[in-house]
Amino acid sequence: MAAQLQEHIAKTVSLTNEQFAYVLSHFTPRSFKKGQVIISEGSRVEEEYFVLSGCTKAFYINDETKMYILQFAMPTWWTSDYHALYSHDKATINIDCITDAEVLALSNDNREKLCAEMHVMERFFRLRTNKGYVASQRRLLSLMNNDTRKRYEELMDQYPALYNMVPKHLIAAYLGVSRETLSRLYNGSK
Amino acid sequence: MAAQLQEHIAKTVSLTNEQFAYVLSHFTPRSFKKGQVIISEGSRVEEEYFVLSGCTKAFYINDETKMYILQFAMPTWWTSDYHALYSHDKATINIDCITDAEVLALSNDNREKLCAEMHVMERFFRLRTNKGYVASQRRLLSLMNNDTRKRYEELMDQYPALYNMVPKHLIAAYLGVSRETLSRLYNGSK
Repeated sequence: MAAQLQEHIAKTVSLTNEQFAYVLSHFTPRSFKKGQVIISEGSRVEEEYFVLSGCTKAFYINDETKMYILQFAMPTWWTSDYHALYSHDKATINIDCITDAEVLALSNDNREKLCAEMHVMERFFRLRTNKGYVASQRRLLSLMNNDTRKRYEELMDQYPALYNMVPKHLIAAYLGVSRETLSRLYNGSK
Repeated sequence: MAAQLQEHIAKTVSLTNEQFAYVLSHFTPRSFKKGQVIISEGSRVEEEYFVLSGCTKAFYINDETKMYILQFAMPTWWTSDYHALYSHDKATINIDCITDAEVLALSNDNREKLCAEMHVMERFFRLRTNKGYVASQRRLLSLMNNDTRKRYEELMDQYPALYNMVPKHLIAAYLGVSRETLSRLYNGSK
């Protein structure tokens, strides 16, 4: 399982095996069952999660009980309520498991400790967040532009396996479209 | 002018005066006139900008010639096409000046040089991007939720002076609403 994290970090920065073992010692493995809640709105958020297997969703339910999906997280993706995590505030979103999931949890304190002790890990986390920021800005733009096909294509580019792993109504909730529109997009793209 | 950058960095990390002077030597001052283009769609992007005075807008115009505003940048804000900057790709958005503007330009190469040489600057840029990521996620959520009032309030919280500095049709384009809806929001919030 640790090999996945090692490979993931190696795509961005170089660590010796000893350095990686030290980094890994700051993570805690956790297992969740399908449907289990990882973060719930209003709770304290102390950790972020590197997904090893399975799939999670970060979502928000508004006053009219409509669900908005902010992010799916698949193996080698990170997930948390980053607003709450970074600002030591209460969660404003929920994260739960679409399937059984194995993750490596990293606490705020341990991430900051690693970043303070190892310049190379500060670099890793800087470059990781840069990618997240850019992805978020692109999604914002396609959402403003109401370009459903682009949002669909971006999602499928990011994770081609998603369409088979995630129930269709959740993909529709991510895109902000009806299931009928999603079917049209899917059939149009084949 | 440099004092603004020094204060801005000091909110996140501590630098000695000597360290700051070294950091500053990697920036280039630039002046732009009202309406002048800083980044245009399709061009190469080599720099990001720390705004000292004035106001810029990052925007995208779709096929139907409708304008979407991704970001305003005011004094002490950073702006660029970060997708293009980080991935050495061509710009997919435009940035121009709403008013005359003074900025400090930092090239990709100089930022990476500073980050490699100074752990403390790697930290600064990591924490800066963390904030940007969180703001972007929150805007995404309020956009998905179509909560215009919240988007308006978030914008006014971020920069209270905006309403008087920026033409109303641009604020409306940022929020994705008509000018009439914007007036209602403004009058409702007084």
